[in-house]
Amino acid sequence: MLGDVITMCRRSRPLVHCINNYVTANDCANMLLACGGSAIMADDADEVAEVTAMCSGLVINMGTPNPRKLTAMRIAGEQANALGHPVVLDPVGVGSSKMRMDAAHDLIKNVKFAVIRGNATEIATLVRGTAAHRGVDADEGAHTAPNIAKALAKETGAVVIVSGDTDIVTNGETVFGVHNGHPMMRLVTGAGCQLSALLGAYVTACPCDVLRASLAAVAAMGLCGEIAHGRLTELDGNATFRNYTIDAMMNLTPEALDKGARYERF
Amino acid sequence: MLGDVITMCRRSRPLVHCINNYVTANDCANMLLACGGSAIMADDADEVAEVTAMCSGLVINMGTPNPRKLTAMRIAGEQANALGHPVVLDPVGVGSSKMRMDAAHDLIKNVKFAVIRGNATEIATLVRGTAAHRGVDADEGAHTAPNIAKALAKETGAVVIVSGDTDIVTNGETVFGVHNGHPMMRLVTGAGCQLSALLGAYVTACPCDVLRASLAAVAAMGLCGEIAHGRLTELDGNATFRNYTIDAMMNLTPEALDKGARYERF
Amino acid sequence: MLGDVITMCRRSRPLVHCINNYVTANDCANMLLACGGSAIMADDADEVAEVTAMCSGLVINMGTPNPRKLTAMRIAGEQANALGHPVVLDPVGVGSSKMRMDAAHDLIKNVKFAVIRGNATEIATLVRGTAAHRGVDADEGAHTAPNIAKALAKETGAVVIVSGDTDIVTNGETVFGVHNGHPMMRLVTGAGCQLSALLGAYVTACPCDVLRASLAAVAAMGLCGEIAHGRLTELDGNATFRNYTIDAMMNLTPEALDKGARYERF
Repeated sequence: MLGDVITMCRRSRPLVHCINNYVTANDCANMLLACGGSAIMADDADEVAEVTAMCSGLVINMGTPNPRKLTAMRIAGEQANALGHPVVLDPVGVGSSKMRMDAAHDLIKNVKFAVIRGNATEIATLVRGTAAHRGVDADEGAHTAPNIAKALAKETGAVVIVSGDTDIVTNGETVFGVHNGHPMMRLVTGAGCQLSALLGAYVTACPCDVLRASLAAVAAMGLCGEIAHGRLTELDGNATFRNYTIDAMMNLTPEALDKGARYERF
Repeated sequence: MLGDVITMCRRSRPLVHCINNYVTANDCANMLLACGGSAIMADDADEVAEVTAMCSGLVINMGTPNPRKLTAMRIAGEQANALGHPVVLDPVGVGSSKMRMDAAHDLIKNVKFAVIRGNATEIATLVRGTAAHRGVDADEGAHTAPNIAKALAKETGAVVIVSGDTDIVTNGETVFGVHNGHPMMRLVTGAGCQLSALLGAYVTACPCDVLRASLAAVAAMGLCGEIAHGRLTELDGNATFRNYTIDAMMNLTPEALDKGARYERF
Repeated sequence: MLGDVITMCRRSRPLVHCINNYVTANDCANMLLACGGSAIMADDADEVAEVTAMCSGLVINMGTPNPRKLTAMRIAGEQANALGHPVVLDPVGVGSSKMRMDAAHDLIKNVKFAVIRGNATEIATLVRGTAAHRGVDADEGAHTAPNIAKALAKETGAVVIVSGDTDIVTNGETVFGVHNGHPMMRLVTGAGCQLSALLGAYVTACPCDVLRASLAAVAAMGLCGEIAHGRLTELDGNATFRNYTIDAMMNLTPEALDKGARYERF
């Protein structure tokens, strides 16, 4: 059951090294605390190998990149691989520039990822190596999501997640569609980044079943969005919704996830 | 009517490239989502020309500067000019250092801005090229605001906004004083940054009438502060107020802005 | 009485230069505004000497470090010393890497700190010059906190604060244990960073009695956590708790602090 992943995460309290963009770093750190883990954020080549070694998992979020941080991502990823720590990649806005594209391809070539999560455009960009891209939004091309997700999963060996109206989770063979979530999550900056952070905690807590841990994270995040939306008054908006989503993760029980998760095998 | 600007922004959903300080980046991104736009944040010279090109507008916020980011600002600004995208400048704390002063003057010399927004001290600093400055607060020298705003508008061709008790909006000829807002906005870090982000969305959505779009943004931001303050209980403070201000922007209707905007022509 | 520190801070409205990590910078800036001060954030070697000079106090927070920022910390610290401004050090995750350790030792050797605040592991690391470290959490080794705090205070001349179940505040001779606070503060990223920012405001407002100002900050922060927790509904979690803590600081009166502070002399 997916709820077991919550239990394992709260029991093992995974410490996750996050190389994160500065826009969503605070929310990602609070999301990790909410789910039972914790974050240490470090992004410089001079220290990331040590920081990775002191943690049990790694999340590489490519937002607000610069050459210094990109170098650190590669070092941290290789260190995590050497130590057998699961690594999550969030290729934020990968189609936005040659720098991000080259860095993402370099990372995928040299680092083995346990999970790669993005929106349909980002994942399609990684598969095709080219893109017609419109920023970091989650609303385009979702209809092809299962196929591009499977293609990238087969190519990389990672569990691939495509966020959208229906979230896709696949290891290249089995494909799940997750129906949890609420459209208002698109109005929160970094909702996807927060999911990637959560994935870092769950796959670190359950490294032996990355597919199930990923499915649990996607369903849990969506369910928390639903719970958060249910609390809103008509005066509330995206800022309060953001807070309530994190709040909901702190209060989410294994039973609530098992009862509330809505997914199917495609 | 100012409310039309809201309609146009929600209809065109402008994607705005933001080069932002890391203190207020999250709030600025959520404010952009609240108003109907969205942000992509990128600040490195190696990618900003591409990111600017994929967006329709640019906001340059000079907080937490460093040489790498300042180089990117110049490149992005010139790219936006070449493509005809409106550019907003927020000269955060420009009087604080020679580095910020030199960078601001370099930007103003080489980039054509649609809007420049700051507090009275910041705008006066840009006009005079010298300053007695006290950080990033909004409370000093407001009585001279119309004159300094007009001077900078004439010098640069930009619509200039001076935030204060009465916000000044001018294109160098017409001068508006906006009476919306609440003193508690001074207790939210980056309230000004959020307004600059909002200006980015509105002038991108209405590039043909930058003065009206600017007036709408200033009135809308102030009105959202009023709405947010009206919701506070006696236990609430500046953090809840910050959230409610963003919430209010998400829920602001054209009719509410037209009804609630309080401004006069000086 | 400790409440006087609140009065002095609200009266003098200290402007504090913060060199802060990007994860918690927004919360730190809002905490400073909540307590009656304000922040200017700047972290580049090219401008920090000027920014420090325009402020009245300095907080050096070592999270998300890189060589550029570490250079700026040293410059700013020496400038603050030259001008007689109080300086607060928060050695975030100092045991996480050689880079942070070397930088912390370099800072302590070359900059005179008014206050050094960390968790037990961080402070022990500074004392021992070596560490078994687990990230940035506050829950380990607290039982030895008074001794390590006294040792570091004697070595550096700073008031040393060890955050934990019982917070320790000492100048090397007098040792206070502060019992305010709530365990939920551990689920807010940067609760410690926020306290360090608050310390910056209070010791800048009361430079003649750093021990008392520090005690007031520690008790006030803990009390605000208690007040925040008292407001939570069963659906609320760590995000709302974070907001309520900052809210509580804005509303905290001298009388409430005097009444609610719970500390003893060891």
